[in-house]
Amino acid sequence: MTKKDLIDCYNRIAPYIHKTPVLTSELVNELVGANLYFKCENFQKTGAYKMRGATNAIMQLSDQERSKGVVTHSSGNFAQSLSKAAQSLGVKATIVMPSNSPNAKKEGVKTYGGHIIECEPTIEARQGTADKIAEATGATFIHPSNDLDVILGQGTACYELLTDFPDINVVVCPVGGGGLIAGSAIAAHHLTDNCIVIGGEPFEADDAYRSLLSGKIETNETANTIADGLRTQLGHHNFPIIKTHVNRIIRVTESEIIEAMRFIWERMKILIEPSSAVTFAAVLKDKDQLKDLNIGIIISGGNVDVTNLPF
Amino acid sequence: MTKKDLIDCYNRIAPYIHKTPVLTSELVNELVGANLYFKCENFQKTGAYKMRGATNAIMQLSDQERSKGVVTHSSGNFAQSLSKAAQSLGVKATIVMPSNSPNAKKEGVKTYGGHIIECEPTIEARQGTADKIAEATGATFIHPSNDLDVILGQGTACYELLTDFPDINVVVCPVGGGGLIAGSAIAAHHLTDNCIVIGGEPFEADDAYRSLLSGKIETNETANTIADGLRTQLGHHNFPIIKTHVNRIIRVTESEIIEAMRFIWERMKILIEPSSAVTFAAVLKDKDQLKDLNIGIIISGGNVDVTNLPF
Repeated sequence: MTKKDLIDCYNRIAPYIHKTPVLTSELVNELVGANLYFKCENFQKTGAYKMRGATNAIMQLSDQERSKGVVTHSSGNFAQSLSKAAQSLGVKATIVMPSNSPNAKKEGVKTYGGHIIECEPTIEARQGTADKIAEATGATFIHPSNDLDVILGQGTACYELLTDFPDINVVVCPVGGGGLIAGSAIAAHHLTDNCIVIGGEPFEADDAYRSLLSGKIETNETANTIADGLRTQLGHHNFPIIKTHVNRIIRVTESEIIEAMRFIWERMKILIEPSSAVTFAAVLKDKDQLKDLNIGIIISGGNVDVTNLPF
Repeated sequence: MTKKDLIDCYNRIAPYIHKTPVLTSELVNELVGANLYFKCENFQKTGAYKMRGATNAIMQLSDQERSKGVVTHSSGNFAQSLSKAAQSLGVKATIVMPSNSPNAKKEGVKTYGGHIIECEPTIEARQGTADKIAEATGATFIHPSNDLDVILGQGTACYELLTDFPDINVVVCPVGGGGLIAGSAIAAHHLTDNCIVIGGEPFEADDAYRSLLSGKIETNETANTIADGLRTQLGHHNFPIIKTHVNRIIRVTESEIIEAMRFIWERMKILIEPSSAVTFAAVLKDKDQLKDLNIGIIISGGNVDVTNLPF
């Protein structure tokens, strides 16, 4: 994917997304000993960066494809984002959701006009149900992270960040399915000479960390992490990009995630979801290596059940 | 207080405060049927607009006065703000706090270098203790809201808002001691032809509402509201300003405050304290009167104990 591809993608989706603000905090900078730039995708439409990739993927479809709708499986933010993006573009979206998805996420999908089909909470049931719907209706299946148009769209958050703050030396992203970090790595590669990209990942779902070590896609046996957005698997479209362009992945514990989340809530006064706190936890863990650098942190989302907090 | 006083005040304190962002949300606008501009003083230093008035009040002291320090009584945001403002200006701050103040607020004061003296949790004990300290040390007593320099400083949040969004027709502020709304009313009066200022107040502490009706300062017998910043009494410096320049006060119930707070958290992804939710609750309550207007809402602060939420 070329620099032109990225810029074209950004210009294409710009009317449908927010250019999100970048927040800073002297207090946080003092604690870390570096200059942090929080790219607030929690303020993105639908509360997550996934709006970017969803919009780009739908916009790349032909008129005939659009007329038949789109389908995905997602228990989380991509479900809401694809629904909202489809609604904005006049396309029907069907969302396969595991039956145990949080109510707040189901309500979100409905708010944005998505049509929910429930399935058993297994990877196989999710994909199988989505495949059946695609076959029956002619809808185009759009994967939440393992899709080149989605990856490129997700990269536009980092594109905005590095365009506005060209002195950033390091960009830190959470790693779940790998779409955000792959897109960010493409943006950093094309926009800067030497800005590195680092991933944050829970120990409890460290497939990307292990995949970088072994050189091939490793799987998670379980994914028992509070960072619900990061329980997913790395894909074959994004892993090669990550292997080439990501500097390293830092793993964090569950309590480090929760502490980082609470710290950001209390000090920055913004709601971030556990998956987003993973990045700040990673920066805290590696702060000796990151001293005095200008660090961009992609705050991936803010969709949290406020009645069920870990603190 | 003239327009020049306000502009001078703004220029004086600007190096010591944040120019806070203004957030908007299509979803919120649809719900209300108007265009809302949230002036995010929860992102202000110390997490509240009170930083503005505290800074102005200290800066208006002579060198000799500054050398003897400042003292106030506050269980809330003014305690932290006066501490931080004093620290920035190299002045000693003593804060009289009721012994039942939340730990988070006490910790905040300590973080910003304030010296805490505890007292019994009554208005009389607070004022008496502060008076004794002023007498013993020569420190200048600075009231959290009933002080013209404080009022003018608080007005700079509205000054920023109306300078950046001159088409705003209505500004809504919470009413506790009355400093913020008096300052905002001065700003709206000097900066616009016909922007009105409305107050939001809990039924449980509606001294300002009753005072506007009777024409004299009424007191709260009790103040049993979750909006901890609004339990205080209107003062003789700000009431005349409010009487002249405030259009009306809208009262809201405790459950309306909590619902409004949760809505803003979930939809806007920002932490706001209950006192700030009072304004949005007031707008929701009066939305038929406010239809299609451009409404500025001063989000006064974001200092909340996240381990003890009302939802």
